[in-house]
Amino acid sequence: MTFMEMELARESTRAYDPDHPVSREDLVRIVEAGRLTPSGCNAQPWKFIVVDEAEARAKLCDALVVENGMCGAPFRDQVPAFIILVELPAKIASAVLQHYGDSQRFAPGDIGMAALNMSYEALELGLSTCFLGMNDQKKMEEYFGIPEGYQARLVMAVGYPAKVEPPRKKIRKPFEEACSFNRW
Amino acid sequence: MTFMEMELARESTRAYDPDHPVSREDLVRIVEAGRLTPSGCNAQPWKFIVVDEAEARAKLCDALVVENGMCGAPFRDQVPAFIILVELPAKIASAVLQHYGDSQRFAPGDIGMAALNMSYEALELGLSTCFLGMNDQKKMEEYFGIPEGYQARLVMAVGYPAKVEPPRKKIRKPFEEACSFNRW
Repeated sequence: MTFMEMELARESTRAYDPDHPVSREDLVRIVEAGRLTPSGCNAQPWKFIVVDEAEARAKLCDALVVENGMCGAPFRDQVPAFIILVELPAKIASAVLQHYGDSQRFAPGDIGMAALNMSYEALELGLSTCFLGMNDQKKMEEYFGIPEGYQARLVMAVGYPAKVEPPRKKIRKPFEEACSFNRW
Repeated sequence: MTFMEMELARESTRAYDPDHPVSREDLVRIVEAGRLTPSGCNAQPWKFIVVDEAEARAKLCDALVVENGMCGAPFRDQVPAFIILVELPAKIASAVLQHYGDSQRFAPGDIGMAALNMSYEALELGLSTCFLGMNDQKKMEEYFGIPEGYQARLVMAVGYPAKVEPPRKKIRKPFEEACSFNRW
């Protein structure tokens, strides 16, 4: 499989088989792909919390609902495992800190890269994933002991798809709109 | 090659062969891997500027130097091509915007994922890459016509390595520090 074939096969899955759990061995392999991700100044500004026990999953499903009952993951109760990607305060080079005045300048991008790597590893293991961007930070802190203010930047759902189907066509803006040469 | 083998082979290269240019065809393939990247609410908050002509490269090399002569890429003059990843204002779901009050909540992570995908595609083409996080925003706007305030979030160096060597061992915090189960 070429890398492009893998990229085209990787997609967000929103229907999972609730009766097919993900093994700890597979979850550890997926996290390992996240752990080895590059990061700005190699700060590794992440902690991964694997959520695969019933009680913790129920809490996470609740934390994925925000004010007014809004939730980006109506399918959440069928997901057998999640990985919470917590953003840590980053130790970056003093020159970068001086220039941007923001220790977290690279951290959300680093977390994005870790999530993507984990989703590729999951794909290779026959698993499907979905990145969930919205959660109730206060519930995340309360339910999982995340230190106050440490952003639960992303949650990744992991499981076997309810139905195996060919990848959907990717809807993206055309190349000419996304790219230019030597000038905006 | 398994995904993990690819992940272990992908690394930051800081010594390039200045006499070996990168073909437009390869640069287009690399950008294509970025264009197809997933993003929060499929906002695709990116524009990629390929920099492969001498004059534009010289300008970019200047824009990579910030105040006090600080620069994260002392090897920049040897790089035959760059891709600037500009972060665009993101159109995200109204629920997310309402909850976080920040249209750019996901954008830096999306840019990180696009950069990582491009680096994998480059790797497959026999090319090396390096993510450069620091630049002079005002120079970027002036030299490349980037609209005021649109962050030049990352620059990716692309080229053939000065010397082909086995991948370095990745220095990362141990698994036990990076991961926990069901609780912080």
